[in-house]
Amino acid sequence: MAGPQTIDLCEVQLDVDRPRRCGYPEVVYAEGKSVATLEKVLAALSSGDREALATRVNAEQAAALAARFPAARYNALARTLRVPGAGAASSGATAGLSSSAPSIARIRRGCVAVISAGTSDLPVAEEARETAEWTGADVNLIHDVGVAGPHRLRERYDEFSAADAIVVVAGMEGALPSVVAGYVSAPVIAVPTSVGYGASFGGLAALLSMLNSCAANVCVVNIDAGFKAGYLAGLIAGRTARSGNE
Amino acid sequence: MAGPQTIDLCEVQLDVDRPRRCGYPEVVYAEGKSVATLEKVLAALSSGDREALATRVNAEQAAALAARFPAARYNALARTLRVPGAGAASSGATAGLSSSAPSIARIRRGCVAVISAGTSDLPVAEEARETAEWTGADVNLIHDVGVAGPHRLRERYDEFSAADAIVVVAGMEGALPSVVAGYVSAPVIAVPTSVGYGASFGGLAALLSMLNSCAANVCVVNIDAGFKAGYLAGLIAGRTARSGNE
Amino acid sequence: MAGPQTIDLCEVQLDVDRPRRCGYPEVVYAEGKSVATLEKVLAALSSGDREALATRVNAEQAAALAARFPAARYNALARTLRVPGAGAASSGATAGLSSSAPSIARIRRGCVAVISAGTSDLPVAEEARETAEWTGADVNLIHDVGVAGPHRLRERYDEFSAADAIVVVAGMEGALPSVVAGYVSAPVIAVPTSVGYGASFGGLAALLSMLNSCAANVCVVNIDAGFKAGYLAGLIAGRTARSGNE
Amino acid sequence: MAGPQTIDLCEVQLDVDRPRRCGYPEVVYAEGKSVATLEKVLAALSSGDREALATRVNAEQAAALAARFPAARYNALARTLRVPGAGAASSGATAGLSSSAPSIARIRRGCVAVISAGTSDLPVAEEARETAEWTGADVNLIHDVGVAGPHRLRERYDEFSAADAIVVVAGMEGALPSVVAGYVSAPVIAVPTSVGYGASFGGLAALLSMLNSCAANVCVVNIDAGFKAGYLAGLIAGRTARSGNE
Amino acid sequence: MAGPQTIDLCEVQLDVDRPRRCGYPEVVYAEGKSVATLEKVLAALSSGDREALATRVNAEQAAALAARFPAARYNALARTLRVPGAGAASSGATAGLSSSAPSIARIRRGCVAVISAGTSDLPVAEEARETAEWTGADVNLIHDVGVAGPHRLRERYDEFSAADAIVVVAGMEGALPSVVAGYVSAPVIAVPTSVGYGASFGGLAALLSMLNSCAANVCVVNIDAGFKAGYLAGLIAGRTARSGNE
Amino acid sequence: MAGPQTIDLCEVQLDVDRPRRCGYPEVVYAEGKSVATLEKVLAALSSGDREALATRVNAEQAAALAARFPAARYNALARTLRVPGAGAASSGATAGLSSSAPSIARIRRGCVAVISAGTSDLPVAEEARETAEWTGADVNLIHDVGVAGPHRLRERYDEFSAADAIVVVAGMEGALPSVVAGYVSAPVIAVPTSVGYGASFGGLAALLSMLNSCAANVCVVNIDAGFKAGYLAGLIAGRTARSGNE
Amino acid sequence: MAGPQTIDLCEVQLDVDRPRRCGYPEVVYAEGKSVATLEKVLAALSSGDREALATRVNAEQAAALAARFPAARYNALARTLRVPGAGAASSGATAGLSSSAPSIARIRRGCVAVISAGTSDLPVAEEARETAEWTGADVNLIHDVGVAGPHRLRERYDEFSAADAIVVVAGMEGALPSVVAGYVSAPVIAVPTSVGYGASFGGLAALLSMLNSCAANVCVVNIDAGFKAGYLAGLIAGRTARSGNE
Amino acid sequence: MAGPQTIDLCEVQLDVDRPRRCGYPEVVYAEGKSVATLEKVLAALSSGDREALATRVNAEQAAALAARFPAARYNALARTLRVPGAGAASSGATAGLSSSAPSIARIRRGCVAVISAGTSDLPVAEEARETAEWTGADVNLIHDVGVAGPHRLRERYDEFSAADAIVVVAGMEGALPSVVAGYVSAPVIAVPTSVGYGASFGGLAALLSMLNSCAANVCVVNIDAGFKAGYLAGLIAGRTARSGNE
Repeated sequence: MAGPQTIDLCEVQLDVDRPRRCGYPEVVYAEGKSVATLEKVLAALSSGDREALATRVNAEQAAALAARFPAARYNALARTLRVPGAGAASSGATAGLSSSAPSIARIRRGCVAVISAGTSDLPVAEEARETAEWTGADVNLIHDVGVAGPHRLRERYDEFSAADAIVVVAGMEGALPSVVAGYVSAPVIAVPTSVGYGASFGGLAALLSMLNSCAANVCVVNIDAGFKAGYLAGLIAGRTARSGNE
Repeated sequence: MAGPQTIDLCEVQLDVDRPRRCGYPEVVYAEGKSVATLEKVLAALSSGDREALATRVNAEQAAALAARFPAARYNALARTLRVPGAGAASSGATAGLSSSAPSIARIRRGCVAVISAGTSDLPVAEEARETAEWTGADVNLIHDVGVAGPHRLRERYDEFSAADAIVVVAGMEGALPSVVAGYVSAPVIAVPTSVGYGASFGGLAALLSMLNSCAANVCVVNIDAGFKAGYLAGLIAGRTARSGNE
Repeated sequence: MAGPQTIDLCEVQLDVDRPRRCGYPEVVYAEGKSVATLEKVLAALSSGDREALATRVNAEQAAALAARFPAARYNALARTLRVPGAGAASSGATAGLSSSAPSIARIRRGCVAVISAGTSDLPVAEEARETAEWTGADVNLIHDVGVAGPHRLRERYDEFSAADAIVVVAGMEGALPSVVAGYVSAPVIAVPTSVGYGASFGGLAALLSMLNSCAANVCVVNIDAGFKAGYLAGLIAGRTARSGNE
Repeated sequence: MAGPQTIDLCEVQLDVDRPRRCGYPEVVYAEGKSVATLEKVLAALSSGDREALATRVNAEQAAALAARFPAARYNALARTLRVPGAGAASSGATAGLSSSAPSIARIRRGCVAVISAGTSDLPVAEEARETAEWTGADVNLIHDVGVAGPHRLRERYDEFSAADAIVVVAGMEGALPSVVAGYVSAPVIAVPTSVGYGASFGGLAALLSMLNSCAANVCVVNIDAGFKAGYLAGLIAGRTARSGNE
Repeated sequence: MAGPQTIDLCEVQLDVDRPRRCGYPEVVYAEGKSVATLEKVLAALSSGDREALATRVNAEQAAALAARFPAARYNALARTLRVPGAGAASSGATAGLSSSAPSIARIRRGCVAVISAGTSDLPVAEEARETAEWTGADVNLIHDVGVAGPHRLRERYDEFSAADAIVVVAGMEGALPSVVAGYVSAPVIAVPTSVGYGASFGGLAALLSMLNSCAANVCVVNIDAGFKAGYLAGLIAGRTARSGNE
Repeated sequence: MAGPQTIDLCEVQLDVDRPRRCGYPEVVYAEGKSVATLEKVLAALSSGDREALATRVNAEQAAALAARFPAARYNALARTLRVPGAGAASSGATAGLSSSAPSIARIRRGCVAVISAGTSDLPVAEEARETAEWTGADVNLIHDVGVAGPHRLRERYDEFSAADAIVVVAGMEGALPSVVAGYVSAPVIAVPTSVGYGASFGGLAALLSMLNSCAANVCVVNIDAGFKAGYLAGLIAGRTARSGNE
Repeated sequence: MAGPQTIDLCEVQLDVDRPRRCGYPEVVYAEGKSVATLEKVLAALSSGDREALATRVNAEQAAALAARFPAARYNALARTLRVPGAGAASSGATAGLSSSAPSIARIRRGCVAVISAGTSDLPVAEEARETAEWTGADVNLIHDVGVAGPHRLRERYDEFSAADAIVVVAGMEGALPSVVAGYVSAPVIAVPTSVGYGASFGGLAALLSMLNSCAANVCVVNIDAGFKAGYLAGLIAGRTARSGNE
Repeated sequence: MAGPQTIDLCEVQLDVDRPRRCGYPEVVYAEGKSVATLEKVLAALSSGDREALATRVNAEQAAALAARFPAARYNALARTLRVPGAGAASSGATAGLSSSAPSIARIRRGCVAVISAGTSDLPVAEEARETAEWTGADVNLIHDVGVAGPHRLRERYDEFSAADAIVVVAGMEGALPSVVAGYVSAPVIAVPTSVGYGASFGGLAALLSMLNSCAANVCVVNIDAGFKAGYLAGLIAGRTARSGNE
């Protein structure tokens, strides 16, 4: 606790003590932030050997940041930007070649399954996938297996049954987390999405549905909060697996 | 249309034209009605050869009405009271002996399945069952097969796959109708129940979930409206089967 | 159950087992899907002799798909696109000439009435009409007969009294389904629309009104869910009529 | 404006200037008030020749007040108490004999129709009737004519078509005001009631429905506000008729 | 009742029996209607000697209709269009010269006051004013007299105290109707507006506030429903004054 | 900061550092606490020379605590209990004789006005009054001056115009704070109450109304939070007056 | 998968395959279940060597079940009942002597911290504690450390910083989970409680607050769902610790 | 009270009596007002020696007003415009040079701290700061110190502990006001912001959280109401400090 805990970047007070307290550095929420601010924060966060992660990065922000961080990888669907650590530049240089970029973790950190109900839920599922990968987890994405075609989920059982943590992403009636949770012993992190219309009320229907899940191993995060679900799943998987590896 | 269409029973204006227009006589909603009013209305409705049905009949009302209508059958769980038609007294006399009472229909009127998610949903499911039977349908009740134990529903597949109409009763996250609907071609009438706590908000969570079902063959009735679901299912089953029988 | 139940179209996992289970193939919800995805899915769905249906198709998507599916019919008001089966091309070739396109059904499948309250409810009513026709039903559309002019509905009584299933589309106070239901014995599928302003809260007022209908033969689908109502009405009408015809 | 405008009754500051400003004296809302307070206020309000009105008077309060105001009439269904003016005792003495008690008005004050949808709406309708009578109007109460039996309202057309103002009381889907308003030119004051269950949400469904009425001559008061509707209807009828009589 | 009650204008079923039943012809709600439809309906409604009224007419619609109805008056703030009756063309010809256009009424129809709380409420107040004038009333508009400056309303007391009906338009906390109602004996029609931000929730705060008004002579219409309030006020004022004048 | 900051009373962790940080000791929220717990906490809080305050104390709790704290004063309407400091027993001994009990303050702490709209708001107003007195302020309570009788508030102007802080308590439409705030320069703390019925939704209407007040000097506390309003008003008045006195 | 997956206990269809799929047997939700049903289910669940758990057991149910299951432990605050496995009777016999009953686990299963904000949150916190213990975890309960006394949480830092999973229970504004999460790297399961009044809306305020937590390691369960939080925390802790132990 | 209390500026009725009653002149809410109206009102308000303040001024309005009021200062982030009094032009002339413009006050008016949780809350915090400065207070803005990094607030303790009033601005879970309030004795004015997504529901989550704060010295204003919070804080600080200075 010798060094400073906060770096003053004017608009942003960077919490540099977070890795010590919480295990991971801050993640940048880009919505509404200027490119100048994003540059400063991402530069600070990637100055060591760790990869920095920004979420809710729109196409304009991504394009502007590309010049400054040529090794960064932008996932347009997930709206995430991952900037390799400056002290890890060699691995970052190959980022464009690989769909599984070098993650912030050096060692295996467990397995995460991300399961989504419908095609329109994919952006949120991708955000969860990118974030869980950033935490160091191996991620398996299984999409478009909503409950109306019950065999579709069962056909993929082997792909998610052994995961250390499972993210389930669903809009509309939000029924998928309960169904998935009935098959597994891993914790299920449910993400309601704003996909739907009418009485979905921007994701409220799915949110309430998930909060009332009759399955005991389901917890919930905010509507469209793919980042938070990916973070939690990666965190849980990492702590589970790390123990197992030592 | 020669006779009167309305009978003035003081507090109640009995719509006696309804069987001609809608196929079935009025059903009495007992909540908040005095025993005296219920007596008058039930007597009028059972004066012919048709069975009268009252719903939301509490134990006190039922006890008071038992003296006046000794052949009536009260289902305490469903809170329904069925009074045999005065011109059908002989069959009514045996009502106490049979769990499948003589119904308002003279001929087969199709098959209805009533499926409920949890033990606490049983009163609503029973109300649906009693009502569908009153419309003349054969009813099969399958209970406690919620989504958290996915095999439970599949094990019962043969009991509901051939139904002409299916009522699905569920509280909490209300996911069961979507799952059932994925297995069948019959119309599914979803009944949200007020079972649950916290963010179930008295059944709102299940209601919204069902309205947003991704399955195309799901429609919804009011929270705890077992009567309405049973009525609709019986109506649809009857029209389907009747055609088939002629 | 010999063949595969799911076809992997990348973004979409096509449930090709659905006709066996549910009677009809999948319908494509176009909102938010790319033209490339729509092309793949519609091609797969229309590869046999059945007509494919897509809903919520906007003008841009429709224009782009016209090149690939020249026999397809786009209803700009309903935002539906119907693609004739490849094995049914001769009838598809004449699609442009007829306002009543050849449907997925080969035999008569019953009668559906679609009744709408006001001019602004027409797009949802048209979506219901297109969908019910796609299921094979004969559809009669009666529009602008809201409750404020009570004679307007009565004047059209003969056009809906014999329908096998009735869709009622209304925004604002959503009173029309209750009124229609009082005249008929067929099941009434109520569709609240987002038409209105202020305390209509995007269709919530009409939705709640319909859920609380005092008529027993009314069930409800999601706000603006013309598709679902048309599907259910076609399904019910088809099952009613088919039995009667055989 | 010579005399005082307010009388200090401790817990209550009686606004004695109201008849001059608003045409009628204050009406006492009894809910939560002690009998002692009610006694003081009713005594003050009935000290002249005008009848005093209290609403939401429960049975206990009514019994306690009967000793102090023997000429008062209590309507247990409406929960209203009307206390004849002290200077009008002779007419008050006959109050028990007549169902149409002497009203606060000396001359004819117009005609009000109170129409209710169902049996359970009767208490609110009665409160409206008592209040409108208190304002001096002739009141015609037409009950149990909800929209599910459309002929019931039409059969009573002559009883409400000539009213100067119409109160329509309905719970559940609250559709009746729109239907009534389509038949008449008088203003319609809609009263949603808390009658219903599930998605009626304590009258919210009926309230929203009435606020969104497509009929231009419908305004709305609070849920269960029979008093306010009766007051407004009596006020409007009185002003309409008074002009016509002079 | 010899002639037809409905004219079929394709998209619109014109209720031509309404003047007989309800005293005034239909008013056209222009939102979402095509110019072609508006032309047909307005032409039909103004074919006699009565002025036609359309509300929610946007600038594009108004410009397009100006060619067809040169004598029409468009109020851009209120978004209303008034088209003089074809049989009343001479008065219509001078419409551009007078801010008080010839109304649908031939004789005096009473006085209406329209009172608004803030500058931003003016469009709704103007819609109410135009509509009330269309019904034949003399209208006095008093604006920007919200409760935060309590003297502003009192200074204008003489301008509204004698009105036959009063419209009060307010957003934000919606307190003005209660305050106005405390000064007068006329019925007060409260119009909540969507003016405000944050917890005004699009006018919900003002709506609830007005529904809970402690003043007995306040009724409420939908959020931003200036038309409905103006219609009701004009109707009440007309019926009050007409009687008095004859 | 030498001594301990927290005292462990088992169920309660007493924050004894609060007077230093926040100026006043903890206040006990009695709802749901056992008498044993209340005794321990109140004894600890009144062990010095300061008066302890408990709110939401029901009659049973108060009776049980009277034996242990004979000098305590219970206000049954406000449901508050004030226990004199043990080191201030002589003044406590006279508590029963005076309606203005010796307060926690030794010196004048400013003037607070508590204004309530209706008789039913009195319990909340009394809780505010007791709390503000406990903070040391002189409190003037003005009740039953709601907006429907506009002269009632103006007649009392002199009683509140000079207050250092004003609490305004109102249920139903919650309009009074805006009106009061228009007359004064002091900060106004608005307390919505759950008084009302129907669309008051347990105080939600008043809460939203107050949050949307067009007066700049109005802030809001929770529904029925008389304690919080009294605390804040006392705090502000004390800080204003203290400065002035030194 | 050789044996049956479901045992038919009439009202309840016991899912006996759950330990294989999900790691733990079913937990009984006692609310609304008859004593007879509870007896049957608990007997079946405790017939092996595992402890059975029932939640939401009221005092009457607990008393009735005590005769049948003398070794069971009832926690009246938590409303939980734990019934030792029949094959583990010797350890069960000592249950009454120990506050830390023998759990379902045979080996160490990790550490859980349960932190609650206020005294009134204790029942929910106790339910979480009992459940986590039942899963086999060591549980540390830290109560009454809400955010208004910021030092109280910091003083207990050592008691929760090393936990494998943390449950945070809070009503009112629900701020505690965010604050706790800022100190630790373990996953935080937030439980909103219905503690509060007014605008807490039965726990909705705390629920929304927790869903919007700015801390990435916070997920949420239903209002008052102490069971679910305890289950998840125990599950996560067990999986983390088990790996570490092997 | 000799002069007029209201100046009629057509669309706006300027309340020129407000400084006498409320201590400060009117502040202009620019949203939806035309530039012409703004010019008239600002000219009237700045005609004396006092600075005029307008809020919610967008960039277009600001640019248009710059020509007319060259000495005005526009804060684009806060969307505020401050126009120096015409009789105070010399000080206004230097406005561009100083970030702390000459305020409406001539003497010291106390200290206000404005504390914001996240970067996105800055516009609301800036509006509060500008407004408090306009009232004459010295303002200290402390930003980006949300609860997820608990040390950040503690590090700044000295900057806010001595303030006379504190504004706390936070979106998302709105936890910061409770935490700040636990450290200080000054009144805390909490401003929820619409920052967030999903279940923040436009600031509702933060609003409810703040209303339920367990800290007694927290009151709340409308969502995004930086102006109101700054006004109140400045008002309170001014009254506290003024007394102290005299």
